Amino acid sequence: MHDAQTDGVIHVGLGDRSYPITVGSGILDTLGSVVRSHGFRSPLAVITDDRVASLYGERALASLREAGFEASLLIFPEGEPSKTLQTIASLYDGMVKLKPERKSGLIALGGGVAGDMAGFVAATYLRGMPFIQVPTTLLAQVDSSVGGKVGVDHAGGKNLIGAFHQPVQVLIDTATLKTLDPRQVKAGLAEVIKHGVIRDERLFEKIKTELDSLLRIDERVYQEIVPWNCRIKAQVVEQDEREHGLRAILNFGHTIGHAIESLTGYETYLHGEAVALGMWMEARLGCRLGITPLDVVASLESLLRQVGYPLERPSISGDQLVESMYHDKKVEEGTLRFIFPTRIGDVGIHAVQDVQSIKKVWEESS
Amino acid sequence: MHDAQTDGVIHVGLGDRSYPITVGSGILDTLGSVVRSHGFRSPLAVITDDRVASLYGERALASLREAGFEASLLIFPEGEPSKTLQTIASLYDGMVKLKPERKSGLIALGGGVAGDMAGFVAATYLRGMPFIQVPTTLLAQVDSSVGGKVGVDHAGGKNLIGAFHQPVQVLIDTATLKTLDPRQVKAGLAEVIKHGVIRDERLFEKIKTELDSLLRIDERVYQEIVPWNCRIKAQVVEQDEREHGLRAILNFGHTIGHAIESLTGYETYLHGEAVALGMWMEARLGCRLGITPLDVVASLESLLRQVGYPLERPSISGDQLVESMYHDKKVEEGTLRFIFPTRIGDVGIHAVQDVQSIKKVWEESS
Repeated sequence: MHDAQTDGVIHVGLGDRSYPITVGSGILDTLGSVVRSHGFRSPLAVITDDRVASLYGERALASLREAGFEASLLIFPEGEPSKTLQTIASLYDGMVKLKPERKSGLIALGGGVAGDMAGFVAATYLRGMPFIQVPTTLLAQVDSSVGGKVGVDHAGGKNLIGAFHQPVQVLIDTATLKTLDPRQVKAGLAEVIKHGVIRDERLFEKIKTELDSLLRIDERVYQEIVPWNCRIKAQVVEQDEREHGLRAILNFGHTIGHAIESLTGYETYLHGEAVALGMWMEARLGCRLGITPLDVVASLESLLRQVGYPLERPSISGDQLVESMYHDKKVEEGTLRFIFPTRIGDVGIHAVQDVQSIKKVWEESS
Repeated sequence: MHDAQTDGVIHVGLGDRSYPITVGSGILDTLGSVVRSHGFRSPLAVITDDRVASLYGERALASLREAGFEASLLIFPEGEPSKTLQTIASLYDGMVKLKPERKSGLIALGGGVAGDMAGFVAATYLRGMPFIQVPTTLLAQVDSSVGGKVGVDHAGGKNLIGAFHQPVQVLIDTATLKTLDPRQVKAGLAEVIKHGVIRDERLFEKIKTELDSLLRIDERVYQEIVPWNCRIKAQVVEQDEREHGLRAILNFGHTIGHAIESLTGYETYLHGEAVALGMWMEARLGCRLGITPLDVVASLESLLRQVGYPLERPSISGDQLVESMYHDKKVEEGTLRFIFPTRIGDVGIHAVQDVQSIKKVWEESS
């Protein structure tokens, strides 16, 4: 048992789908009482990947059992290539063996992939069950566990199959960040940088100032950074839960980023790495189209290089890139839509019909 | 082109998820203009089975094309055994090739299986698209196309995977009933009888009086029966969209019926046949437990035998039946829940812990 300390609670206000995000160090051990407070019932399924299972599976189960629950882990292989309908099918099989009821509820323990897949199972098993997000990676803590987007990838595109299904709580233990490898930390930081670029110049400056502490996983700085990012994400989602408008700004870097992930089979890049490359490309595209000032591109590029993202263009042609983007959910009336920074801290949503410019920017990059 | 005549519009009042049910003879040819009225965009997918595709696929496409849409059929093999995640996966593949956008929308053309599967694709592709139900079987017209329950079966249980996703309109062409074979008509009548038993004695009497016309598919009587049943279903769903209470009464015959379907691999019984057998078993169970009067059981049994349902018990043991029912979505706090008639036209929801009585009633049946 660790000393649990709660650093903050962020409220996501979505009417009868509202929920709290609790952030603290060591609070994984409070999981059992959190689950009990939501009226979940045995048998409980905890969906997680093999890596997280070996790190935190037993602690999660111990907390649940101490609170009087029967609970089991449903485990899938780590990584984005697991985020498929096939894995979902095997999770359904695991659920059938466990025989949960509609009100049993379900727990997502792990990174973005675990959250997206457990959330999809929660959205669709028995036509919908409540679930709790327990994100253990930086990317999941600052971004994917908040907002209710759940789903899986398809060879034809990232997150092509999914739903909007909000959790009943997000429980964030910042101490779990200490077991991340540096590559995962950097990947998560891409979404933090994104939040700075789209909404908060002060956050962007903070990342620059504290980059060393962030990269060596100094938990103290994350106790400030994680709730800060959750608040930004929550504010956007509260205004536009189902992405009819504003929420699209969270896709900065993702229009190109998703295409890169899809075209490289989800194996070469971590999601955050593809987003970093996507942000750089999209900022340059915005610049070429006269929307993003050159100094904004330079400022972003400088930070991305400091973190050390792989910004070399993979062997994907401009034609392939554009073709893949047309499969994305963000296409509307046959037109690609991009998020372009106007300064650090603000962006606009733009329809782009000039496909040649997209290809040029892509192919001109180093 | 047929002469289209609209016999009635039923409004399903669900706030911002409200929608009309339009019933008429020959109105399949109005599909294109209906789709246009909802602002759907090309490319449009029409999900249907091979049998319905050969009967009505071209007419549906012609109407859509006349209204200016690009439209394609996505076809799966007829029958409940197709209602699996595997078929959904192949429908997703078809969608990816078609490249619809979020606002393209989708059309379900066919019986209950087509509606349930197309609805699940609509609920989950691109995180949700609008869809229109065009039911062509009696079962789908009087029951499954209304209310927003969508999903697929799992070896572990009927409709175990699914969602609540309301259509934006239900378009019912009663002329399509003429191409049903007698077995399908009888299967659909089971849900009509169910509606009579749970909510409307006058409907029950009407079925008895008009049984000959109903069985020889006299469209005139269906022009009255179909909207009548839609109204009953709509009233229940309006009061309890997500089955927290009242909606469970629609499960009369289904607690045992689903177990029968699941245990026979969805191949021996049509859904309505399993429901007919389930209603008879559940009414007898209600009688044994002192809730359903004997004359109600007799009256129901008499009508079921007149229609000619297979009421012989299949080779399933009482233990198997009970075990299977515990997998159902209707289980709550480990207790089976049944709908028992108190008279023709009214029912109550009951938790049943007396598993021995269930097995006895099952094993004592002819």
